[in-house]
Amino acid sequence: MRFVQIVVLAGGVGGARFLRGLKAAVPGSGITAIVNTGDDVTLHGLRICPDLDTVVYTLGGGIDEERGWGRAEETWTVKEELAGYGAEPTWFGLGDRDLATHLVRTRMLDAGYPLSQVTAALATRWQPGVTVLPMSDQRVETHVVVADPERDGRQQAIHFQEWWVRYRASLTPSAFVQVGVDAARPAPGVTEALAAADAVLLAPSNPVVSIGTILGVPGMREALLAAKGRIVGISPIVGGAVLRGMADRCLPVLGIEVSAEGVGRHYGARADGGLLDAWLVAPDDPGAVPGVDVRRVPLLMSDPEATAALARAALDAAGA
Amino acid sequence: MRFVQIVVLAGGVGGARFLRGLKAAVPGSGITAIVNTGDDVTLHGLRICPDLDTVVYTLGGGIDEERGWGRAEETWTVKEELAGYGAEPTWFGLGDRDLATHLVRTRMLDAGYPLSQVTAALATRWQPGVTVLPMSDQRVETHVVVADPERDGRQQAIHFQEWWVRYRASLTPSAFVQVGVDAARPAPGVTEALAAADAVLLAPSNPVVSIGTILGVPGMREALLAAKGRIVGISPIVGGAVLRGMADRCLPVLGIEVSAEGVGRHYGARADGGLLDAWLVAPDDPGAVPGVDVRRVPLLMSDPEATAALARAALDAAGA
Repeated sequence: MRFVQIVVLAGGVGGARFLRGLKAAVPGSGITAIVNTGDDVTLHGLRICPDLDTVVYTLGGGIDEERGWGRAEETWTVKEELAGYGAEPTWFGLGDRDLATHLVRTRMLDAGYPLSQVTAALATRWQPGVTVLPMSDQRVETHVVVADPERDGRQQAIHFQEWWVRYRASLTPSAFVQVGVDAARPAPGVTEALAAADAVLLAPSNPVVSIGTILGVPGMREALLAAKGRIVGISPIVGGAVLRGMADRCLPVLGIEVSAEGVGRHYGARADGGLLDAWLVAPDDPGAVPGVDVRRVPLLMSDPEATAALARAALDAAGA
Repeated sequence: MRFVQIVVLAGGVGGARFLRGLKAAVPGSGITAIVNTGDDVTLHGLRICPDLDTVVYTLGGGIDEERGWGRAEETWTVKEELAGYGAEPTWFGLGDRDLATHLVRTRMLDAGYPLSQVTAALATRWQPGVTVLPMSDQRVETHVVVADPERDGRQQAIHFQEWWVRYRASLTPSAFVQVGVDAARPAPGVTEALAAADAVLLAPSNPVVSIGTILGVPGMREALLAAKGRIVGISPIVGGAVLRGMADRCLPVLGIEVSAEGVGRHYGARADGGLLDAWLVAPDDPGAVPGVDVRRVPLLMSDPEATAALARAALDAAGA
């Protein structure tokens, strides 16, 4: 089966790498990425969209391969100077090259352009070879409720970036709050891309704060279920552990077991009101998801070839 | 005579160097600099105050001594990246270290702090040893009316920075317009500093777009004339030529001769409705200004000692 239109729901590093593998696997297909914007944050007056940038940099050849985020050959002069002024926060990794992206984006947003148009404009430089859409043009920000050490341990919602980058997810979350999500709607192109999709893939991104945030946009879930093609998810959990990121800190908050089976059951079978037609788990991972075609394939995205093979396996499952 | 309070009207590089010499000459005195903000510009969403920054960096040890403006050990990564996005303008010298200053300032201005408070906050890092005040908290921007090459030579007002940095003052100006000056008033502290001043010095800055812009703020001239001390100007013209900058391109627009005498007569005698009690010109410069104590002293600010000697000569004239 040849796939003409493929839609991928993606977070940051994992989603970006999966997209790169997919692009290599099906060079003739049209790929649309619907990217989480719940990690977005305004710091030092700059609007920062970590997942969108990671996807565009990765696909456009600008990414720092070792870190997985930010620009290659990055420098940190502005960050050091901001610290020299005592300008908070100092914990965010604001690189000089990256900062130019934020400046252009902030300027366009301030001029009234919606994020989807800004993202398209930035992509003209990077030519990602994939249509990159923010999940929504409305501002949605993930906040994490924790016992805040700066407030004597009182429960407090802090921005996801503060929880993840500043505290390295060390503070136990009691809830995730998607601020603004009620007023959000899918960005222009999202619903149309899903309606035309021969295959919809859930990248191996965080099921709570990446895929979960995308799915939380009102109308998004319905748009997914309206796709004519099958919906295939790829587990971000292998052997009961996350390959990258902090999904293991997020899943328990929603009562989801940290396992491929747990996440698969959380997404649920499309036939039963859930999302999945198929679910890809690692070869040695146990688990079944009733009503879902569970397939065991290597999930490691250790190099471009392995990632392309994973993407092909996902498309195989979508074509079954 | 000992000077307790000295006020200096200053533009950018020349004003900053004069202030540094003055600070060295009278370590026990209180010095207030009233700095031109007509060169200020918003680029890439950043509020940039070139003269304020030049003064603060110069006095605080952060200046690039060779260029005379911007930060020492500067890098230009963000500027290159902005050009990579095609973000205009590309002609402005936006250094990475400098950019952090603009980010902090823009953020504070956006938060509602007036420029005078922002300037004071930035100065806490640099400790210039001089009270640095913007001439006004209201936005005043110098535009230059030229035959615009981008508009088929039609008369057009362009920002001073575009005229000076982009075109190197090569376009013949037909007028200077201080946009916003009618609604401006002296910044908090300006009138008070002038009222208490034992001496008021006009730095050897551009008489049109630096000192002239400061003097154009409604109430500024009256505040100067209310100073209890004498007002002493230092000529920026030596031997009929500018030592630095583009005053020779500005003075003719106002019908002022490009000479020490021409500028002195332009400022005029305080006794006759002008400003000056005394006027310092170079030893070989001819010229008299009726009603003004014209003194011939070396005007070169080639090194800190020469500059301090010039400052002492100015104070001598103020104490006479």
